[in-house]
Amino acid sequence: MSMITVALAKGALLKDSVKRFAAAGLDFSAVLESGNRLLMVPSACGRARALLVRNADVPVYVAYGQAQLGVVGFDVLQEAQLPVAQLVDLGFGGCRMSVAVKATSGYRRAADLPPHCRVASKFTRSAEAFFQQLDLPVELIHLAGSVELGPITGMSEAIVDLVATGRTLQENGLVAIEDLFHSTARLIGHPLALRLDDGPLQAIVDRIAAAEPALVAA
Amino acid sequence: MSMITVALAKGALLKDSVKRFAAAGLDFSAVLESGNRLLMVPSACGRARALLVRNADVPVYVAYGQAQLGVVGFDVLQEAQLPVAQLVDLGFGGCRMSVAVKATSGYRRAADLPPHCRVASKFTRSAEAFFQQLDLPVELIHLAGSVELGPITGMSEAIVDLVATGRTLQENGLVAIEDLFHSTARLIGHPLALRLDDGPLQAIVDRIAAAEPALVAA
Repeated sequence: MSMITVALAKGALLKDSVKRFAAAGLDFSAVLESGNRLLMVPSACGRARALLVRNADVPVYVAYGQAQLGVVGFDVLQEAQLPVAQLVDLGFGGCRMSVAVKATSGYRRAADLPPHCRVASKFTRSAEAFFQQLDLPVELIHLAGSVELGPITGMSEAIVDLVATGRTLQENGLVAIEDLFHSTARLIGHPLALRLDDGPLQAIVDRIAAAEPALVAA
Repeated sequence: MSMITVALAKGALLKDSVKRFAAAGLDFSAVLESGNRLLMVPSACGRARALLVRNADVPVYVAYGQAQLGVVGFDVLQEAQLPVAQLVDLGFGGCRMSVAVKATSGYRRAADLPPHCRVASKFTRSAEAFFQQLDLPVELIHLAGSVELGPITGMSEAIVDLVATGRTLQENGLVAIEDLFHSTARLIGHPLALRLDDGPLQAIVDRIAAAEPALVAA
């Protein structure tokens, strides 16, 4: 069996991602060690390795087959639109992709927004698809961060952004008025690698799928 | 005179950006205070404010007129392709946008790369323009970070990335073989705001342009 490579997202999903692979027999806990600067980390057993990359890059490495498996949020998958197989809903990392506006604006649903208004987002593809489906033409502004500044500065009427606790919205006088979708972490795979797999890859997927989330999280 | 808003990039350019505006009479030193979580920070005199945003978002706020002035790297301006006026080359934040390959690859110039090879970059627009000009068709792969993993994992033959000291390349067994351009921080402005300005905006630009970089940096 050749080396299995797994793309893991740095940040909020990392700890739970490592736990799920541990339940499947692959120990990537070295990536969690403070002071780890390596981007490519071997598993304890040596028969697999993890690529530590940015959220948005996980589906890229999996789509190009440089990683056979990966863990990333559904939000990123929706935005990336890359040819990867969604294998398991891992349940953790829950958040909503929401339309938010100024609390004082009076808009209560996305359909209340004026046609051709501006909407700022890090997720402009998802936002575009949503407003197209709503048949509401909007001007999308792509931002790299701090999307809440859009309505605060008056640059945009609304934003489309991830909402976890809602605290950032509240602190900035914004309110979520409609959800595009709910997002959780997903186990994804390279379709060709899965088709050519003679067992070991599917065994990992099966063990991750079978692991009781409540147990794994404990 | 109405409130002047300045978009400043978080990160490496921030300290020098604040120094330049101080030389022009606008004290934004509050943005440098550790523990500052505000995204919108008033100047000490109260007649201006700074928007603290990601590098890539500086030209967006200036292009939409939410900020009349901004400071951002030439690299970001090249990539953003937004309608902003480049006013002053501030000299700091110097780095090169370079093509890099594995040191063991044997490629010595960009033109040595095989046609239709893969090139990974955070700056795919700049990379695309460069290879088009070179008349070399390449497949661009957009990454959000750690671009050096492209050649390391075998996903791409080359990368196009910012090089400051060259340490990251060296640590990853890569070598820069050709520069697309040299980048420094630029003072940019909203064209319409500059045209409608009755004096104060131009006064700031003039004072920043006149300030001796060596003196300001001291």
